[in-house]
Amino acid sequence: MNVAGIPNRTIRLHADGWSVEVIDQTLLPHEFCLARLQTLADAGRAIADMVVRGAPLIGATAAYGMALALRQDGSDAGLARAYAWLLAARPTAVNLRWALDEIRTATAKLPPAQRTDAAYRRAAQICDEDVALCSAIGEHGKRIIEEISKRKGSSPVNVLTHCNAGWLATVDWGTALAPVYKSHDAGIAVHAWVDETRPRNQGASLTAWELGQHGVPHHVIVDNAGGHLMQHGAVDVCFVGTDRTTATGDVGNKIGTYLKALAARDCQVPFYVCLPSPSIDWTIRDGLAEIPIEERGVDEVRLVRGLGPDGKPTSVLVTPPHSPVANPGFDVTPARLVTGLITERGVCPASADGLAQRFPERAGRR
Amino acid sequence: MNVAGIPNRTIRLHADGWSVEVIDQTLLPHEFCLARLQTLADAGRAIADMVVRGAPLIGATAAYGMALALRQDGSDAGLARAYAWLLAARPTAVNLRWALDEIRTATAKLPPAQRTDAAYRRAAQICDEDVALCSAIGEHGKRIIEEISKRKGSSPVNVLTHCNAGWLATVDWGTALAPVYKSHDAGIAVHAWVDETRPRNQGASLTAWELGQHGVPHHVIVDNAGGHLMQHGAVDVCFVGTDRTTATGDVGNKIGTYLKALAARDCQVPFYVCLPSPSIDWTIRDGLAEIPIEERGVDEVRLVRGLGPDGKPTSVLVTPPHSPVANPGFDVTPARLVTGLITERGVCPASADGLAQRFPERAGRR
Repeated sequence: MNVAGIPNRTIRLHADGWSVEVIDQTLLPHEFCLARLQTLADAGRAIADMVVRGAPLIGATAAYGMALALRQDGSDAGLARAYAWLLAARPTAVNLRWALDEIRTATAKLPPAQRTDAAYRRAAQICDEDVALCSAIGEHGKRIIEEISKRKGSSPVNVLTHCNAGWLATVDWGTALAPVYKSHDAGIAVHAWVDETRPRNQGASLTAWELGQHGVPHHVIVDNAGGHLMQHGAVDVCFVGTDRTTATGDVGNKIGTYLKALAARDCQVPFYVCLPSPSIDWTIRDGLAEIPIEERGVDEVRLVRGLGPDGKPTSVLVTPPHSPVANPGFDVTPARLVTGLITERGVCPASADGLAQRFPERAGRR
Repeated sequence: MNVAGIPNRTIRLHADGWSVEVIDQTLLPHEFCLARLQTLADAGRAIADMVVRGAPLIGATAAYGMALALRQDGSDAGLARAYAWLLAARPTAVNLRWALDEIRTATAKLPPAQRTDAAYRRAAQICDEDVALCSAIGEHGKRIIEEISKRKGSSPVNVLTHCNAGWLATVDWGTALAPVYKSHDAGIAVHAWVDETRPRNQGASLTAWELGQHGVPHHVIVDNAGGHLMQHGAVDVCFVGTDRTTATGDVGNKIGTYLKALAARDCQVPFYVCLPSPSIDWTIRDGLAEIPIEERGVDEVRLVRGLGPDGKPTSVLVTPPHSPVANPGFDVTPARLVTGLITERGVCPASADGLAQRFPERAGRR
């Protein structure tokens, strides 16, 4: 999508043909900088330190990380080491494991000398496929916004979203924001309520930034405000992303998603989860019991990063210095609270049957 | 309650016998300072700028504000002006209007020369009464914690609370935290999950601070985390305060309370609202339609205040500079989501009948 009027992707090959450029998302919204990944370690750190984040982009970065690793060491041992190392970088997003499996499948049976090229090819495909999946999700979701827009006449359709499931979380388009961009680009009046998304503020720092750069009307709100807005009819529909959805439609996503799903149910606001199929974990059926929830560092809660009065990025301590902190990074929204899953193949109920109808070739696998 | 081992109240007369000292809550948790109020304008600003906050303490400060005003101008016009001016300082907390009415009733029929003394006397009574009400709420709530503790054996009772309804929100003891303090002081193992409470972080800056000063075990969490903790059995009971509760038991409180009440209902966690009777607005019956919700300034969301790397308080900008912001300060939790109201006269259902049984002398008034 556009940054200062120029189309961008979150990840691409550098002009040298082998190193990888990503947008450094830890610096947004105040600085737009590219980071260059040249080694397996660079890629692993970029994922672990959230230079890149968002389940689909984590997958794409891991794919290129495998290519960088095989360039350094194309042996079976090198392949196994890179797979294990990258898999450990973040626990919740299943796209990470999916992308690593894709690269392993594409390379393991080749002679070591041919593995690097094959990995780069498959990584580039994964990126292009992600753009196509997100674009398709956007088209399916756009129809939902269009329907609401017809009922509302000239007043904008109000979408609430949590965290960042925009183009910054993917290669382009985004998942939850793809329907918003497709609608906006088609001239449908749409406005987004952007949950700040503590503790890392991906809503305030990434979603608000990308919507602003693309010209989509929006307001930032604190995470506490969405329920009140829904009670008062100010939200027409919720769109969120997911880091891992079970074969039964339970949705693992950024901490706080469950609370918005509860409010949507209570206020009869439709609540959709937008997901490319690599975000589905076909091996699990009970989200609350089986989706691993990352417990993240306490400084994410204790310290808030932003632009200081001197115009330089800085962090401030918001808790008493000695107060203990807990920081679970994700929660699970039970399928019963989800109006529908918007996949690249269309909308389906959040259930084993719903997913099986859209993905019959995968649903049988356990 | 204790600050560094020494018992404190949030508001008291200065040694001069007429000016009023309050804890400046905008500086916590990093500095503990007293502010001195000498005029009506000082009192109004302290309420509007949230030097003091919390419905009961707003009431107590307004009562002393009337005394300060009458000291300057004891005429009928002076009384009316002070009443109107203080009433406009914050819209949501009904204790403000209640306290102003109390002072007006205690002074209006007296000759102007006697009004100041009468106002000071009634203001002091209001403060002492508030301590007694909160202490009684604490005893009633303690019994709930005690019951849970018996079931849990030696493991601590986990209480979740939102915003600050501790002693800093009242004159002493607090509302939602009074049961926690009473239990802790009685040797019952209790642990609090403290919602950060964006945008002003009253949980992280005030609740965590006062619990820490009094030695109560606690963890700060982001507002997004409570639902996840409830899903996993980590919360035994929720206690919150209220700025205004209707005669039918609808609860106006800090924005985000509704979301926690929804999660409590979904996870079968009891959800109690602790309220001294001056927080009940007997004139209204539909919280969503009738409780005024304060729309606060956008900089509360855009800027986060804390301690900078140099150890000095500073603010950082967390949104893109040009992103619009919305900032509703309160929400309404419908009575149907409330397990019980803990008043100074005991626990009752959140309903017109429940409140009428505890307060028969008030329930008839419309």
